[in-house]
Amino acid sequence: MGNLVADLQTLIRQPSVSAKKVGLSECAGLVANMMRKSGINSEILHLDDRSIPPIVYGEVRSKSNPSRTILFYNHYDVQPEEPLELWENDPFSGKVEGNYVYGRGSADDKGELITRIKAVQYMLKQTGDVPCNVKFIVEGEEEIGSVHVEEYLRKYHDRLCCDGVIWEFGYVDAKDRPIISLGMKGLLYVELMVRGPSADAHSSLAVLIENPAWRLVAALATMRDQNGRILIKEWYNEARAFTEEENSVIASEPFDEQGFKEEYGIDRFVADAHGRDVKKALVGTPTCNIAGFNSGYIGEGTKTVLPSQAMVKIDFRLVPDMIPEKQLDRLRKHLNEHGFGDIEVKFIHGEAAARTPISDPFVRQVEQAAKETFGSAIISVSSAGTGPMYSFVKVLGAPCISVGSTYMFARIHSPNEFARIDLLNKTTKCIGRIIEKFATG
Amino acid sequence: MGNLVADLQTLIRQPSVSAKKVGLSECAGLVANMMRKSGINSEILHLDDRSIPPIVYGEVRSKSNPSRTILFYNHYDVQPEEPLELWENDPFSGKVEGNYVYGRGSADDKGELITRIKAVQYMLKQTGDVPCNVKFIVEGEEEIGSVHVEEYLRKYHDRLCCDGVIWEFGYVDAKDRPIISLGMKGLLYVELMVRGPSADAHSSLAVLIENPAWRLVAALATMRDQNGRILIKEWYNEARAFTEEENSVIASEPFDEQGFKEEYGIDRFVADAHGRDVKKALVGTPTCNIAGFNSGYIGEGTKTVLPSQAMVKIDFRLVPDMIPEKQLDRLRKHLNEHGFGDIEVKFIHGEAAARTPISDPFVRQVEQAAKETFGSAIISVSSAGTGPMYSFVKVLGAPCISVGSTYMFARIHSPNEFARIDLLNKTTKCIGRIIEKFATG
Repeated sequence: MGNLVADLQTLIRQPSVSAKKVGLSECAGLVANMMRKSGINSEILHLDDRSIPPIVYGEVRSKSNPSRTILFYNHYDVQPEEPLELWENDPFSGKVEGNYVYGRGSADDKGELITRIKAVQYMLKQTGDVPCNVKFIVEGEEEIGSVHVEEYLRKYHDRLCCDGVIWEFGYVDAKDRPIISLGMKGLLYVELMVRGPSADAHSSLAVLIENPAWRLVAALATMRDQNGRILIKEWYNEARAFTEEENSVIASEPFDEQGFKEEYGIDRFVADAHGRDVKKALVGTPTCNIAGFNSGYIGEGTKTVLPSQAMVKIDFRLVPDMIPEKQLDRLRKHLNEHGFGDIEVKFIHGEAAARTPISDPFVRQVEQAAKETFGSAIISVSSAGTGPMYSFVKVLGAPCISVGSTYMFARIHSPNEFARIDLLNKTTKCIGRIIEKFATG
Repeated sequence: MGNLVADLQTLIRQPSVSAKKVGLSECAGLVANMMRKSGINSEILHLDDRSIPPIVYGEVRSKSNPSRTILFYNHYDVQPEEPLELWENDPFSGKVEGNYVYGRGSADDKGELITRIKAVQYMLKQTGDVPCNVKFIVEGEEEIGSVHVEEYLRKYHDRLCCDGVIWEFGYVDAKDRPIISLGMKGLLYVELMVRGPSADAHSSLAVLIENPAWRLVAALATMRDQNGRILIKEWYNEARAFTEEENSVIASEPFDEQGFKEEYGIDRFVADAHGRDVKKALVGTPTCNIAGFNSGYIGEGTKTVLPSQAMVKIDFRLVPDMIPEKQLDRLRKHLNEHGFGDIEVKFIHGEAAARTPISDPFVRQVEQAAKETFGSAIISVSSAGTGPMYSFVKVLGAPCISVGSTYMFARIHSPNEFARIDLLNKTTKCIGRIIEKFATG
């Protein structure tokens, strides 16, 4: 299986940073070629606007069972490599050391992609066929919010239609148990801006001129209580509750509270949660998070300034059935009703949540394949993070499941990102088994 | 009187930026020389720590009336010249155009200093004497908070002792009326810091990890209401009320509400104040101002981050009899009592307020001199700003009064700062008259 690692190195050595628009079409071409060499038909597909990074489409039609189709969703773009000084090797070296392949994208997401290509390649080599149709969609904007993936899904719907989707990432925990995640939270990202005097003023004038930072603090204080509960009217109206089945899965899911607290250097959880509430919060609690707050003078020492503006960036995580546009309206209404109608609300990004029902047969197939390969597997009702899963569910109408090879502390998005070769090989086997089980329906 | 402008140009052309420690001892030397050439004995005085900018001490003993002494307080340092691109000429050019001298420090404070040196020079030239002793203290750290002026006053108390102090600045309004200001507010400048997870975390973890920016918002919301009232227990306990005399001075003081609102692009005042309340607020209301707030990601676009810390800079303006250290204790107690004992309170700067009583004969002398020179004069109970006036009152026991030559829109602390030559000349005459009247006791 040596050429899995060599091919992964080839992919890592082609930088493809979507945030900087570096090397994207080159990397798409590389992926398409690699697919072809592995026996997968591939195409580079575009939207009308050619400045948008292309997707790579891959396909192998099954001779024996062409009525059933599995789709692999991956991305060829990577996070920026900065901060450079913290890398022990060149971020794009693909250096192999023992069980580790290092480099930006080694895990997220080139490592995942390679296991899937290799699984199909080995299958074709052994049997000359695949047990069902296998398709690939590999996008180039995942790290900047998958801004065009839904447009691609709609435009190329006929090519991409399928009966099940294996998601682009999947984690393996510290005890080598794969985590099979069935959902993703949604996101509403906004900027609130308060404008005060036409220019920064001397702070002695704070007796007369309203300070925009104070106004923003006052507005924010109406939005969330100290236990994390969002105080915007009707915020939770549509939020889907857990099913009995989900509740029992959550109850049985392992979670190392002490280890988590140590990892992040904290001594309590929000609302003093513990036990099952902690796990429920991770998979199913909406949040209102201040991602950035900026106003006035933030350098060393004193400056007695009354700032001309104050800005906050907020990301709201959403759960299934909450509609980003509707929540945005509620936020605007809340500010108006609380006397903050002057605060500008800038919509930055919205994405609905998605969750595949535990009862879906696809879940059992993936779980079974993972258990056979890894010895055990953990089902998670949802990831705490956000991705365009809802777009896949909506446009393709197929269930989505995350499973993959990434060690949970593999430093993705950070310096010295790595993939573990043992997990890459195991996951390649696991993907083969998933295809086989999925083919049986 | 031509050499007033030439000497001012010489001073402007010597950059002396205390924030950057640029040109300070050079400028002190220049001032000392200029004094000497004007007939004023001068000395450069140091503290033990020679890295602290020196003061320039100047003195002319009166032959006719050596029992009475007036002290001029000025500073030779200037604000940083940035932003450079907004200056129409070199910030240190001292360019003269018609009635204007341009340059950093042209008004604040080299323009004021030159009127005082020239007033004494002309007096000596005309009469060979001064009607009372005249002293100068010219410091080099005013723009960074006069951090050592009290130490200088204590160390050189015997040289600096006096019966009255003319403060370093003084404004002339849009109708060419000098504003005689009798006080300054105090200041308590602090930084509040909340620490969250040990490093920035993915914002999906906001379900579990307390966001330090939210914690800071919650703490701040307990400190001040939306009308500007400070909610910290006993905050106003010592705040000195206005005397009847002060109230009537405030009532008669002109204030152009509409012009002020237009200047700052606002349509209302804090607490919807108007009329006499506006003027009272400026001279006598304590404030709690957010001078800076910083947390998380503040660049373009989205980053879904849970910040590891949140910091706010606050300046509290104080009125007479409020003691900065006591107010700091109250702030700390407030945070503790409201469950925010984990918030770090860093003391940055404290300065008490000072106010010279309207009934002091010195006030009438200055007012009379100003009226004789300018035709009219406005008495203001206090400036809204802060300076080390309390140190002068405490150490020297002398009343302090602000009067000077700076046009109220002279862009001090901003690009294209200027001094008006007509006001420099009138103020020079006014200073001469003040010395004469003061000498009579």
